[in-house]
Amino acid sequence: MEFKSKIKTIEWNRAKNLSRMVDQLVIPYEYKLVDIKTSNEMFNAIKTMIVRGAPAIGIAGAHGMALAALEISQKTTKKDEFLKLLKEKAEFLKSARPTAVNLMWAVDKQYNLVKNASASVNEMVQMLIDNGIVLENEDIEINKKIGDNGAELVPKKGATILTHCNAGALATVGYGTALGVVRSAFAKDNTIQVFADETRPRQQGARITTFELVMDNIPVTLITDGMSGYFMNKGMIDMVVVGADRIAANGDTANKIGTYNLAIVANYHNVPFYIAAPLSTIDTSIETGKDIPIEERDHEEVTHINGKSICADGVKVINPGFDVTPHELIKGIITEKGVLYPPYNESIEKAFEM
Amino acid sequence: MEFKSKIKTIEWNRAKNLSRMVDQLVIPYEYKLVDIKTSNEMFNAIKTMIVRGAPAIGIAGAHGMALAALEISQKTTKKDEFLKLLKEKAEFLKSARPTAVNLMWAVDKQYNLVKNASASVNEMVQMLIDNGIVLENEDIEINKKIGDNGAELVPKKGATILTHCNAGALATVGYGTALGVVRSAFAKDNTIQVFADETRPRQQGARITTFELVMDNIPVTLITDGMSGYFMNKGMIDMVVVGADRIAANGDTANKIGTYNLAIVANYHNVPFYIAAPLSTIDTSIETGKDIPIEERDHEEVTHINGKSICADGVKVINPGFDVTPHELIKGIITEKGVLYPPYNESIEKAFEM
Repeated sequence: MEFKSKIKTIEWNRAKNLSRMVDQLVIPYEYKLVDIKTSNEMFNAIKTMIVRGAPAIGIAGAHGMALAALEISQKTTKKDEFLKLLKEKAEFLKSARPTAVNLMWAVDKQYNLVKNASASVNEMVQMLIDNGIVLENEDIEINKKIGDNGAELVPKKGATILTHCNAGALATVGYGTALGVVRSAFAKDNTIQVFADETRPRQQGARITTFELVMDNIPVTLITDGMSGYFMNKGMIDMVVVGADRIAANGDTANKIGTYNLAIVANYHNVPFYIAAPLSTIDTSIETGKDIPIEERDHEEVTHINGKSICADGVKVINPGFDVTPHELIKGIITEKGVLYPPYNESIEKAFEM
Repeated sequence: MEFKSKIKTIEWNRAKNLSRMVDQLVIPYEYKLVDIKTSNEMFNAIKTMIVRGAPAIGIAGAHGMALAALEISQKTTKKDEFLKLLKEKAEFLKSARPTAVNLMWAVDKQYNLVKNASASVNEMVQMLIDNGIVLENEDIEINKKIGDNGAELVPKKGATILTHCNAGALATVGYGTALGVVRSAFAKDNTIQVFADETRPRQQGARITTFELVMDNIPVTLITDGMSGYFMNKGMIDMVVVGADRIAANGDTANKIGTYNLAIVANYHNVPFYIAAPLSTIDTSIETGKDIPIEERDHEEVTHINGKSICADGVKVINPGFDVTPHELIKGIITEKGVLYPPYNESIEKAFEM
């Protein structure tokens, strides 16, 4: 599959020792790169969603640990102190966003890499930089496998795939998870098309998914979040594929708010509903979706669009960033190790043993 | 029930022979009245949604016929010619919006009033003006009955009622249908509260429903259209009440796009889902929802908010203004003649005989 858009959402720059990322706050109006030079800047980039998407913020966390190591190595060459300060930075970075587990996964992976290493502080810094780059490159390979595995599930030639939020190249290092499935499917059959949920409140579907699909010349129709049932009822949607922020051991899946409604509506119409995510999104320490922490975000995301209020003053707001789709609404979980089917407890366990 | 906000959405001005209406395009930023002086202006006011909401555009249509009659009476005093030209204007006014049947109902009611009357042209003009005012006043009385009938259905003290779009005072002459239920319920128990779906693309929930509820000091929480399932799953929603644009003889109900998704999600959670509408919204000439024409609206409603694009250029759009909720998802239809229950064919027939 030729990946035309060649988006690289986040990339370590070896010459300058910094993390360079696409600024997702200005898409689709502008496509610009920003340089993240410190671990504090990385925390803010994750928190304010300059970088977003579960796999991408995982890599951001990994790079953040490399930046933290560079900073700490300026202060101390003592391993104990280095590791103590690094551990603090790890907890700090992990606190930037609570729901997507890939952030915790990548930051912990980095910390564990050096924790017991027989290496000097400078060597540890290099290990963290190198491993950040390894994870970065692995992410694209993993997505391509997810894409190819998911493309097998497309039910017919010229199918229409509906997605929610952005689980695309810009939610990962490149290629995408749900949109990786779309890209692999499009490579096999260029008559497929995508319907993209706008995804209020932050409109990642409208802003980011349409942007990257138009860039790749994959036909995309923008719909509002309330329209999915209308089109399913008309037989116009053949498959739903979305990403994930955290998957519990039983298959319950936290993803962008609105996913749960979409899963219910898809099941009502017998439209197959799939999750596409790397194994790093599966948190086997959590038994069911009930235990996944749901981020409550800024109320202005709901009350304002492009800086302008859309409602009366005095209105109350609750703004959960994610919801949990119960495993019984999920037809399959598309991973780099193949498509997992119910009962998910077993298929997930097996996938980790592969 | 004291109706604090005293919104009168549309009102005939006898002194000036014009229709004065609240400009709903500028709410919640401004509350201003506009004077509609000709039938062509009325057509545009309906089409551009200066006035919106099925019952309100019914009255707008009735006033539009009075304006048309005034215009035509300047050209001719011949009854035959007057009626011929009035019939043409009736068809023109009815074409402003295709889905809400109240427009057709009110315009036809006006035409039929004079069609066979033994009256002069000038007398006919006066009949149309007077009857427009009668329909206007009746609408408020009907809404109060709907509200009182629906308030009986609120399942508990301190209940939370979720609504979609705006079926409020501003969708009617005053008081509202779905929000009429809220107002009557709030008069009995001022611990109830409302959750309002934003209702993309035109955000009538955010813009108009929050505006009129805040004005009446009824607690309202704004949510995006994709959040309803999240709150139902948490047991935070006790009842859903929405309005209607056209109800078929079997109870299938066309209402603002997104209603169908909401009905599916409510049923999945066993949250009772009700329609609140006057009998004038029921079109017994149509057997099922399949035959209700669905208005396809301007694509910019989806791609732009407050005049600014929210997506990439090159995206495709489909923008159905309404969807149809099948009768099996509707627990009851709250009318001025009581609450209708399945089988709707029978209960609707009975209501028209009352």
